[in-house]
Amino acid sequence: MHSSELQTPALVVDAAALDYNLTTMAAALPGARLRPHVKAHKTTALAARQAAHGHLGFTCATVREVEGLAAAGLGADLLLANEVVDARRLGAVVATGSRVTVAVDSDETVDAAVAGGVREVVIDVNVGLPRCGCDPSDAGRLADLARRKGLGVRGVMGYEGHAVGLPEHDVRQQLCAQAMELLLTAHRDVGGDVISAGGTGTYDMNTWANEIQAGSYALMDTAYAKLDLPFVQALFVWSTVISVSPAFAVADCGLKSLGMDHGNPSVANGSVWFCSDEHTTIGFETPVQVGDRVKVVPAHIDPTIAYHERMHLVSAERVIETWPVDLRGW
Amino acid sequence: MHSSELQTPALVVDAAALDYNLTTMAAALPGARLRPHVKAHKTTALAARQAAHGHLGFTCATVREVEGLAAAGLGADLLLANEVVDARRLGAVVATGSRVTVAVDSDETVDAAVAGGVREVVIDVNVGLPRCGCDPSDAGRLADLARRKGLGVRGVMGYEGHAVGLPEHDVRQQLCAQAMELLLTAHRDVGGDVISAGGTGTYDMNTWANEIQAGSYALMDTAYAKLDLPFVQALFVWSTVISVSPAFAVADCGLKSLGMDHGNPSVANGSVWFCSDEHTTIGFETPVQVGDRVKVVPAHIDPTIAYHERMHLVSAERVIETWPVDLRGW
Repeated sequence: MHSSELQTPALVVDAAALDYNLTTMAAALPGARLRPHVKAHKTTALAARQAAHGHLGFTCATVREVEGLAAAGLGADLLLANEVVDARRLGAVVATGSRVTVAVDSDETVDAAVAGGVREVVIDVNVGLPRCGCDPSDAGRLADLARRKGLGVRGVMGYEGHAVGLPEHDVRQQLCAQAMELLLTAHRDVGGDVISAGGTGTYDMNTWANEIQAGSYALMDTAYAKLDLPFVQALFVWSTVISVSPAFAVADCGLKSLGMDHGNPSVANGSVWFCSDEHTTIGFETPVQVGDRVKVVPAHIDPTIAYHERMHLVSAERVIETWPVDLRGW
Repeated sequence: MHSSELQTPALVVDAAALDYNLTTMAAALPGARLRPHVKAHKTTALAARQAAHGHLGFTCATVREVEGLAAAGLGADLLLANEVVDARRLGAVVATGSRVTVAVDSDETVDAAVAGGVREVVIDVNVGLPRCGCDPSDAGRLADLARRKGLGVRGVMGYEGHAVGLPEHDVRQQLCAQAMELLLTAHRDVGGDVISAGGTGTYDMNTWANEIQAGSYALMDTAYAKLDLPFVQALFVWSTVISVSPAFAVADCGLKSLGMDHGNPSVANGSVWFCSDEHTTIGFETPVQVGDRVKVVPAHIDPTIAYHERMHLVSAERVIETWPVDLRGW
């Protein structure tokens, strides 16, 4: 199919850009040094590409992501880097032979892992982002508790999410170092082989963790594009101009096809005025006509992709593959 | 099922609140005076409730909404209040016997309606919101063009979206009046029976339109709750506390279960610090524990609902119905 035949709004991946990003990352963090986070793309077909680049372990944020990767034969080493209160569905995945490790940060989540049939955990440590993770000083106690209850404790994880998006390299590096100092302190009390952390913004400076959980690098967005990263924009929301007025035009994508928490999306030849449910009003610098195609760059890919049923891989104006975004939901 | 068994994050509708909202609106705008907009809820089962309250015509924003309502037997009078460049799928719906009217605001969209097999249109008029709609002075020409090309022109529509959310009643009313003056001017040139406009924020003051396109009134959100409206909050994202720290706790809903363009969601007994992909960090006023249920109120329901596969109707802590959000996508 010619890409101009795509019904809009459509999630479109530039095949060459994706390949460039995957290759660049695999050279920087080969094999198990990267544990790609699938929450950004939620697409097993894209995870299979990452596996083909040598990364056989994956990071997940939801039970469904774990289930979907396992069902797709990508369950060699799945880390659910998130706390769950009901782990029964994870135990069912373990029972099929996949390796599933879950993050715990409290007595309750340790109990949930045991009750749910999960056999391995990592201790999730708060390294500065006010979100999940135990106090570093509590990590050893939790590891002991987990081991007493029969769980294998593979190590620690701690996400420096307060650092990954900072535009200044030096500040980002300094905050990353401080966060990882906390994680290594906890690791001394916990033990195990795994020190899991990091994201796209710190992939090259987090030398303390032994596996990096980056995910956005594969497709990129305007938020990460502000940083000094070697990855290129690979994901676009293609839309169609449906209305033209003297000062602006309207494209048929909006709040239900774009994640908005990082602000408005961008277009190459104009400025986005605002988005409505199914519209984006754009002041174009050059004249456009009803029916023209507009490539919109999302500000934040993760919540953008979660709106779409499929993404189309495009090369030389041909749709070469269409992948279901099959890991959506919970 | 007891509602405490719902897997989270879950979209939950308070059955009594929904019924109150539907009844209140049906009393204010009975029958065809309301053409409920389904874009807010994207759920044919809820549209069927609105039909049971006497509203047999519906407003849609996407082709899929039109297709879904028609397939569900709710196609007596469907208005696609949006411009489309490719109307072939709409023509297919018309061919099955449903009545489909599409908005046009340009020569190109008139041509698309003709080419796509749509038989009836309304002229979409820009009444002040910089989005779709022709200049009021061009409406008569477009209506003539459409009629010459064999289309039935049912009248006009014009959405005062720049007014509906304004908190001050008088200012809202004044802007609504100015907008509807433009719409009536256009209607004098266009003719036809339909003068379609309005939203939840202007449902009681827009006395110029003869049908109101309100949709949010059924479920409500925190943005509309700031206005002086009689409707009550009926939609919640139920989540589970998965992590507790001394100053905050974390619930398992986030950017992929909440539309964020109107800002953070709210909770009754705390303040939302921020949302991440699958987390909301909350400073609670009273202690919470891992496993506690949190009812989160979305700031904007439309893009919130579009993330969810289903919504659960709950009454007296029982899940009495589960409805697929079957009109998602495009």
